[in-house]
Amino acid sequence: MTARGRFLSFEGIDGSGKSTQAQRLAQNLRAAGHDVVLTREPGGSPGAEEIRALVLQGDPARWSAETELLLFTAARRDHLERTIRPALAAGRVVICDRFADSTRMYQGRGGLRDTVDALHRLMIGIEPDLTLLIDMDPEAALGRAKARATAEERFEDFGLPLQQQMREGFLALAQECPDRIAVIDGNRPAGEVAAEVLARVEPRLP
Amino acid sequence: MTARGRFLSFEGIDGSGKSTQAQRLAQNLRAAGHDVVLTREPGGSPGAEEIRALVLQGDPARWSAETELLLFTAARRDHLERTIRPALAAGRVVICDRFADSTRMYQGRGGLRDTVDALHRLMIGIEPDLTLLIDMDPEAALGRAKARATAEERFEDFGLPLQQQMREGFLALAQECPDRIAVIDGNRPAGEVAAEVLARVEPRLP
Ligand SMILES: Nc1ncnc2c1ncn2[C@@H]1O[C@H](COP(=O)(O)OP(=O)(O)OP(=O)(O)O)[C@@H](O)[C@H]1O
Ligand SMILES: Nc1ncnc2c1ncn2[C@@H]1O[C@H](COP(=O)(O)OP(=O)(O)OP(=O)(O)O)[C@@H](O)[C@H]1O
Ligand SMILES: [Mg+2]
Ligand SMILES: [Mg+2]
Repeated sequence: MTARGRFLSFEGIDGSGKSTQAQRLAQNLRAAGHDVVLTREPGGSPGAEEIRALVLQGDPARWSAETELLLFTAARRDHLERTIRPALAAGRVVICDRFADSTRMYQGRGGLRDTVDALHRLMIGIEPDLTLLIDMDPEAALGRAKARATAEERFEDFGLPLQQQMREGFLALAQECPDRIAVIDGNRPAGEVAAEVLARVEPRLP
Repeated sequence: MTARGRFLSFEGIDGSGKSTQAQRLAQNLRAAGHDVVLTREPGGSPGAEEIRALVLQGDPARWSAETELLLFTAARRDHLERTIRPALAAGRVVICDRFADSTRMYQGRGGLRDTVDALHRLMIGIEPDLTLLIDMDPEAALGRAKARATAEERFEDFGLPLQQQMREGFLALAQECPDRIAVIDGNRPAGEVAAEVLARVEPRLP
């Protein structure tokens, strides 16, 4: 590989502030002169957004965990080919709001984690250079998520016990991958969180 | 496994007579008192038909081979869970118009065959008890397919060189799996083909 950008992802439970922080980081890096692509999953390319719409429309229970995993992986593959890899090849900084760790946590529940990992190795392969895990008290995060009104209730309709389980899962993942995943305390004003995110990212930039 | 039906698939190049023979076999087996489910791929369950529609609508070139493979595997997983496995568990005979061998041939082109096989092992697993491969002269099959008017041009728009390549691929697959795949000469009147199909299927029924 010759010229190559940087691939950054935000992860964390619902309402932890991923989208807020991804936007702030994009602004901060652009202000510092970096060429930034801000994207999100599921979605992030026209084809992946079509798949996202298919999964989210109608009764969510109509897909099994395995089928949903395959659909999200199809969306990720498209996003990777059409958006992420071209941007990295052009030396840009890619900031992705959720990536494969969210699939490991959410679709990997109920004994599917090994399948999720095997499918990732087979069809995706890439990991972010740095993942910012916004860690937060699940009750406060749920309060934030509920205060916000969106059409897509589905990913926020999980309740507190699952939020707690996902938080523990994300923290365990961070311990498995200490070089890749930076844990950021999200229980603070957004500006403070953004400052720490920027400090963690800067040493990793080209 | 206690009560279990039989899983039969039809494979072959476009226009070889798979759908015709699948219907005739269903009629013949029903006339003999069997409880038959006639289904098809891609599709065969409400969710899988939604995925099929997504892949077939719009510009076919918008999906890469890998993304298309993942979408078809998602459709197959849904079809398996919602249609095939429940029918087999109820002791019924499932006749499927195309199954995983079509994916091996069409999505496995261009060096993807190992990926197709690995993905099948990881997410699908099952093989038919018996696959009827309708073998035919590619030029005659193409003529048949073109004579028929359908809205879905996509899977028939491949041209003769690909039909020839696919025919050779299917025949090679039949040599790899002689116990599962029966090669049937499709260059005959439909009734003659149907009689041979029935003769091959009958010894395998419960
Ligand atoms: N540090 C913060 N302090 C207070 N409120 C915040 C903070 N960060 C974000 N918020 C607010 O909390 C809500 C959730 O934030 P955001 O949408 O960024 O979270 P998210 O992790 O992207 O959620 P989701 O997983 O549902 O996409 C928003 O209304 C946002 O304005
Ligand atoms: N043995 C036969 N002799 C002559 N014509 C046939 C025969 N079998 C099928 N046909 C005709 O050929 C055309 C293609 O047959 P059919 O649709 O069954 O093929 P297919 O393998 O299902 O094609 P596709 O792959 O496009 O779905 C139809 O018009 C059908 O009526
Ligand atoms: Mg968000
Ligand atoms: Mg047909």
